[in-house]
Amino acid sequence: MALSDLRAGERNEAGIASVLGILQQAFGERFQTGETLRYQHAHTTTYIPAQLPDGVVFAESADDVKTVVRACADHRVPVIPFGTGSSLEGQVNAPSGGISIDFSRMNRIIEVNPEDLDCTVEPGVTREQLNVYLRDTGLFFPIDPGANASIGGMTSTRASGTNAVRYGTMKDNVLAVTAVVANGEEVRTARRARKSSAGYDMTRLFVGAEGTLGVLTSVTLKLQGIPAIIAGGVCGFPSLRDASNAVIMTIQLGIPVARIELVNTLQIKACNAYSGLTLAERPTLFVEFHGNEESVALQSQQFAEIVAECGGGAFEWTADPLARAKLWKARHDVYFAAKNLKPGAAVIATDVCVPISRLADCVAETEEDIDAHGLIAPIVGHAGDGNFHVSLVLDDKDPADVKKAEEFVARLNARALAMDGTCTGEHGIGQGKIPYLEQELGGTVELMRQIKRSLDPDNIFNPGKIFYLG
Amino acid sequence: MALSDLRAGERNEAGIASVLGILQQAFGERFQTGETLRYQHAHTTTYIPAQLPDGVVFAESADDVKTVVRACADHRVPVIPFGTGSSLEGQVNAPSGGISIDFSRMNRIIEVNPEDLDCTVEPGVTREQLNVYLRDTGLFFPIDPGANASIGGMTSTRASGTNAVRYGTMKDNVLAVTAVVANGEEVRTARRARKSSAGYDMTRLFVGAEGTLGVLTSVTLKLQGIPAIIAGGVCGFPSLRDASNAVIMTIQLGIPVARIELVNTLQIKACNAYSGLTLAERPTLFVEFHGNEESVALQSQQFAEIVAECGGGAFEWTADPLARAKLWKARHDVYFAAKNLKPGAAVIATDVCVPISRLADCVAETEEDIDAHGLIAPIVGHAGDGNFHVSLVLDDKDPADVKKAEEFVARLNARALAMDGTCTGEHGIGQGKIPYLEQELGGTVELMRQIKRSLDPDNIFNPGKIFYLG
Repeated sequence: MALSDLRAGERNEAGIASVLGILQQAFGERFQTGETLRYQHAHTTTYIPAQLPDGVVFAESADDVKTVVRACADHRVPVIPFGTGSSLEGQVNAPSGGISIDFSRMNRIIEVNPEDLDCTVEPGVTREQLNVYLRDTGLFFPIDPGANASIGGMTSTRASGTNAVRYGTMKDNVLAVTAVVANGEEVRTARRARKSSAGYDMTRLFVGAEGTLGVLTSVTLKLQGIPAIIAGGVCGFPSLRDASNAVIMTIQLGIPVARIELVNTLQIKACNAYSGLTLAERPTLFVEFHGNEESVALQSQQFAEIVAECGGGAFEWTADPLARAKLWKARHDVYFAAKNLKPGAAVIATDVCVPISRLADCVAETEEDIDAHGLIAPIVGHAGDGNFHVSLVLDDKDPADVKKAEEFVARLNARALAMDGTCTGEHGIGQGKIPYLEQELGGTVELMRQIKRSLDPDNIFNPGKIFYLG
Repeated sequence: MALSDLRAGERNEAGIASVLGILQQAFGERFQTGETLRYQHAHTTTYIPAQLPDGVVFAESADDVKTVVRACADHRVPVIPFGTGSSLEGQVNAPSGGISIDFSRMNRIIEVNPEDLDCTVEPGVTREQLNVYLRDTGLFFPIDPGANASIGGMTSTRASGTNAVRYGTMKDNVLAVTAVVANGEEVRTARRARKSSAGYDMTRLFVGAEGTLGVLTSVTLKLQGIPAIIAGGVCGFPSLRDASNAVIMTIQLGIPVARIELVNTLQIKACNAYSGLTLAERPTLFVEFHGNEESVALQSQQFAEIVAECGGGAFEWTADPLARAKLWKARHDVYFAAKNLKPGAAVIATDVCVPISRLADCVAETEEDIDAHGLIAPIVGHAGDGNFHVSLVLDDKDPADVKKAEEFVARLNARALAMDGTCTGEHGIGQGKIPYLEQELGGTVELMRQIKRSLDPDNIFNPGKIFYLG
C-alpha cells in the first residue's frame, strides 16, 4: 500500500472532548494525555506513520474496560486496545483519535488447570511472563512470535511464529475469550471444554479481529507439557528448492517437527556477521524436535534421511542446550542481523504465506525481485507453514526508499496471491494490508463489514483497521 | 428440551407457492415434491418430529445452488441444505417449510494437492468416498464421526469423532469454504495457505453454522499421510476414575494417541453380547496409535506404563489388522449393541463435553442418574477430548418414555455446564439444544443473532436452528 492511501479518519471532536472529561474524572492519574505517552501508544514499529490517541487509560480490571467502552460508546469515540505495541501493520494507531486502553496492568494469571492443560489470563500478560509463571507446573504456552507480545495482542492478530508448525497458531490455542462488546457488557465466547459444536465459533471470530469487535478482558489458552528433551540442528542445501523439498517431505511423513525455519543465503551472511556463526552461505534449515529421548532421536534420524535424499549437507543434531541456544538466538536476532547489513538503516518486516508446494517458487522469485530492484532484504521463513518474512533494510526517513519498499510489498503480495496464498500469515491486516485483503478475498470482505456493522454499529472499536467501512 | 417447546415457525405460503413454480420450471425432474421424498429430507434420526420441506432440489453445481438461493431470497422462503441426513439434533428439519437442497449429486472431488496435503471437494462428497478416492495418494482425511456423513454436513455441524484427540475437529481441518450467501453470490472464505491472519476468520464462522449463514458449495480440507503402522489395544480399569486418570496422563505426557475411547460397564456388556467380544465387564479404554514401527511401539509402551500406574489390567496391543478391525467394529457398532439391550427399542444418542479433569465425575454422576431413574443408557466417550455420548434406549413412540429422556437430557446438560463444559461436543445445536446454548453462553448468543441478522436479513438460511431470532 502507498502511504498516500492511508486514510486519516474523521475525528469526532465534541465526543472526544466529553470522553476526556469523563475518563479524567473516573481514572485520575491512571488516565494520561501527555504527548510522549500518547506517541508511545501509537504505531512505532514500521514506516507507517504514528497516529496518536487522545488519551491512554491504564486499565486494571474488566470493570475499567467497561467504563471506557461505555463512555466511548455514549459519545461515539474510538477505543484502541494496546498490549505491548509490537504489532507491525499499524494495529494500535488511532486514525480517528480516541482512547487507547493500555493493558500492562491487567497482567494477572487468573487460573491454571494443570490436569486440563489450560489457563486463563488477563490480556496484558506477556508470553514470557506466562512461561516463567508456568515453569514449575511442567507446562508451557508454545506460541512464540519472536517479540515478547501480550496474550491479548497475540490473540487479536492471530499470531503464530516459529513453532506453529507443531503447535498451531493462536486460532488453535485459544479456548475462549471474554470481551466487552458494544453494549458495554462482558460476554464469554465458550466454556473450558476442549471442543464444542455449540453455535457459531465466536472464539475464532475474536481471534484475529484486531480489536475491531470488542475489547478482550481475558483469554483462556491451551497449554502443552514441557518436552523432556529438545534437540535441534542446522543444515545447508544447494538450493531453495532442495531445502523446500526437505520441508515438504518432513511434513508429509508426519514427523512432528517443532520448528523448521528456512533462512536464505543473504540472511545466513547477516547472521554469520552479526551472531558470530560460521555457517556455509547457502539456503539453510534450522530445525528443532520436542519429545523424550527416544522420540527425539527417532525424529532426528528420520529428518537426517530426508536431508540426505534432498542433497542437503551433513545434518548434525544436538540436545545440548548451549549449542541450541546459540543457534536460536541467532534465528531470533535476524532483525538485528539484517539491520547490521546497512549501518543506520531501519528494518521493515513484512510477511506472506503460500501453500508449501509454492514456497520455493515464491521465495526464489522474491529473491530475483529484490536483486532486480537493488534492495537489501534477507528472508526467513516458517517453512513448515509456507510463511515467510522479508526484512527490508532501508532508510525509513527517505521517501524514495519508502516508496521502493511499498512497491516491493505490493509485488510480493500479488505474487503470494497468484500462488493461492495469503497477504499475511501472522502479522495481520491492520492498516498496512487493507488493499491486499480486498484482493485476496473479494466479496468475503463485504461479509466482514456486515459483521462489523452489526456488532459495532457506531464503529468505535479500533476503526480504520482490516477494512474501510465507507 | 421438551418437545412442546419446539417452535413450528411461520410459513410464508405465498412465497413458497411462487418458489415451487420457479424451481419446477428451472429444474424439471431434479425438483421433487412427493411426500415420501420430502419426509426422507426431514429429521428422521431421533425423537424430534420430522418437519418436511416443501420441495427438494437435487443440485449439481454451484450455479444450481445460486438459482435456488436467489429464488428463495426473492420470495423469503427457507433454504435447508441436506447432506446424508445423519445429523442428530434436527438440523435438516424445515420448521417453516421451504426448499431442501440435496447435495448427493454434488459429490465431485475437485482437486487434490498431495504436496500441500489438501483437497477441495463438493459438499456432497462423503468421508468414505473421499478416503477411497485418496487411497492411492498415501493420504487420508482423518475426521470420523461414525456415520458416513457428507463433508458439507460435517463442516456445518463442526463434526469430530473418535480420532479428534489427535487430528482435531472440522474446525481444525477445513482450510476454506465457498458458499452462496444472501445476495445470491458465491464467496470464498480463504486461500489455500496453511495459516492466515487476513481479517476475520470467516472459514471458522461457516464451520459449525449449520447452514444458517449461507449454503456451502465447496470445502477445502487438510489431509494427513496414511500412517505406516496402526496399532491398538483395549484395557479394563477398576473404576471410571482410574480410566480417566490414564487418559489425563496420556494427554499430559503428549503421547500422540490417535483414539482413546472410554466405554462404560453397561456398554461393554452390550458390546460383548452384540459383537461377540469377551471383555471383562468394567470401565474400559479402547486405544489406537498411528505412526511407523518405532513410534507406535514407543507410544504403546508408554501407554502400557501409564495403565499399570493407574491400576489398569494387562494392556496388550496389536498391529494385526484383523484383531484391530474386530475391536473398532464393535466400537462403531455401539448404537446397534445398545439397541440390542431392549428388543424393539429406539436409541437416542446425545452428547456433552467437559474439561477432561471432570470427565470421570460427569460420567459417574450420569451413571447414577441413569440408575436412579430406571433408564437403560450405555455410555461411550471420546475421552481425550472430554466428550461423551449417552445412548438412551427407549420406546420413542411412548410419550412417557420420551418425556423421561428429555428430562434426563436436561439434567445431563445442566451437569456438563456446571463443570464448565458444553452442551454439545460434536452434534451441534440444531433444534434439540437451543435452550442449552442460551444456558451455556448467555449474552454471546445475542452476538450470534446479530451476525445472523446481518448476513441473512430475511432469515432464509435454515431458520429455527441454533437459536430463535424472535
